[in-house]
Amino acid sequence: MRNQKPFIGIDLGGTKIGAGLIDIQGHVLASDYRKTHAKSGRDAVIARIVEAAHAVMEQASIDADGVSGIGIGAPGPLDIPNGILTEPPNLPGWHNVPLKQIIEEALDISTYLENDANAAAIGEYLYGAGKGTRHMIYVTVSTGIGGGMILDGQIYHGTSGGAGEIGHMTILPNGPHCGCGNRGCLEALASGTGIAREGQELITRGAPTLIAKLAGQEPVSAKVVVNAMHQGDPYAQEIVMQALYYLGIGMANLANLFNPQMIVIGGGLSNLGDMMLDAVQRSIDYHAFPLAARQVRVTFAKLGSNVGIIGAAGAAMMAQHQA
Amino acid sequence: MRNQKPFIGIDLGGTKIGAGLIDIQGHVLASDYRKTHAKSGRDAVIARIVEAAHAVMEQASIDADGVSGIGIGAPGPLDIPNGILTEPPNLPGWHNVPLKQIIEEALDISTYLENDANAAAIGEYLYGAGKGTRHMIYVTVSTGIGGGMILDGQIYHGTSGGAGEIGHMTILPNGPHCGCGNRGCLEALASGTGIAREGQELITRGAPTLIAKLAGQEPVSAKVVVNAMHQGDPYAQEIVMQALYYLGIGMANLANLFNPQMIVIGGGLSNLGDMMLDAVQRSIDYHAFPLAARQVRVTFAKLGSNVGIIGAAGAAMMAQHQA
Repeated sequence: MRNQKPFIGIDLGGTKIGAGLIDIQGHVLASDYRKTHAKSGRDAVIARIVEAAHAVMEQASIDADGVSGIGIGAPGPLDIPNGILTEPPNLPGWHNVPLKQIIEEALDISTYLENDANAAAIGEYLYGAGKGTRHMIYVTVSTGIGGGMILDGQIYHGTSGGAGEIGHMTILPNGPHCGCGNRGCLEALASGTGIAREGQELITRGAPTLIAKLAGQEPVSAKVVVNAMHQGDPYAQEIVMQALYYLGIGMANLANLFNPQMIVIGGGLSNLGDMMLDAVQRSIDYHAFPLAARQVRVTFAKLGSNVGIIGAAGAAMMAQHQA
Repeated sequence: MRNQKPFIGIDLGGTKIGAGLIDIQGHVLASDYRKTHAKSGRDAVIARIVEAAHAVMEQASIDADGVSGIGIGAPGPLDIPNGILTEPPNLPGWHNVPLKQIIEEALDISTYLENDANAAAIGEYLYGAGKGTRHMIYVTVSTGIGGGMILDGQIYHGTSGGAGEIGHMTILPNGPHCGCGNRGCLEALASGTGIAREGQELITRGAPTLIAKLAGQEPVSAKVVVNAMHQGDPYAQEIVMQALYYLGIGMANLANLFNPQMIVIGGGLSNLGDMMLDAVQRSIDYHAFPLAARQVRVTFAKLGSNVGIIGAAGAAMMAQHQA
């Protein structure tokens, strides 16, 4: 490659801003994590993004001339070609913020905006579990379920950057309500939120489950349900098995639609470990076509907590190579 | 374009072989349809394919030098890169037939093999309803449900040509059995086969439906159910509404995953007309994200009965331009 200078990857979340200086092999040369303080307002948050970028350049003793580009991974919905955050739900007061342009002007470095789930997919594809594949689906299973799709070696955006809403496939018609307004979405059935809701409903019904004891006065979380499961509570076991059953059906649908080489699962719930991989693999073997099932490997993400900054840098790298 | 010579498109089906001489604007310059006589065996069927290709060249008074390439649309499963029909269910006795190579040698014209549903998708994209789009999903709703996906202006094959099994998304976990071995597939719920099965079950249960009278001694077909619906039979109406409900959920899932500009519906059941379009559009508006729903247009295929030969020729054209 002509350009060996590193990229800056910015991971903009509702609670945390991450910045990393990432070389083209995906190594983290420097990193900086600080609070978003979303309530401090748009301009203050943007100032903290700029500070974080400066911090990683200072750590590595370089200036803007030493950086190939900046990638920002941000929560959707986005207008990717124009680099605009349209209405991020976890950044109150942000409406149509042209973040790409603002950062580009503040730092004098070419900047690219990408959806955070797509950035994570790119990170795993270039430097993580999906290295060496050409067709890879990344799925994050956490409070919500999101994802990104690498098709023929490129991140797939669809018509307007909205592709990849894996969590909002309807899996169970007339199933439980989802935050998106639909019912029976994969996210409503198999996310941490879905697991917590089922636990809460058991308590409301007065079921003799350990979940009630572990939750105490707090609202039930997925973590509490998983703890109860590990302690042998059959109610909690059933809730988690059901969630994995639906997750498996969702993944089998992706196998049939995309015939990918690999499905990479990330996100907090992947700490369920082999239990999750086994359920998904079994479901693909049962529900998907033999051809698709044979070819797809299900595995966990590898980049850990740096996936956001590495993926954002990777998104800038991919965008520059395409341009 | 450098090469203005026409292409030959071959549509190989279990009952019919179509051949067409198609120019680069999609016009049918000559066509030939003949019976497959699948039971006559592999070599006899291949001989008829070659005869059909010769017939269209003769009609246009050209020879192999006047043809840019041959595209064959054939039933899956296929090994597309190597041009092999692995195990076509409606061509008994065909196992790993290297049809691309055989036809190439018999006619001395570069030949490309494509899955028939993908070929139809390419036809509608280049010359039919999807003209001018870059992101288009084609769905055929007939005895089965199949499809093809044009993503960023290219047909998407996945790892091994197995992508696009739209009919085998699980839409209703533990739903009715599907011919593929799974349960609750879109095809089991919304295809002609699914509609016929529901009609048959009503008769078995002794429901007072017009379907019984119209079917007489024959097994119930989707056509009979649709006829009964048009004559006001509430049982038949309910069966068709249910099928369209599930079809709509399937299409909403595609809108969320692919954020396409257009969903093009073909196949025999599209003669349900506006009733089908309205149901699918309503379902997308309800079940999919507003962004994806706003951007996608649902429409019927335009190429009619020539879609097979036009699409097969288009597949050869696309493959040559990529190569």
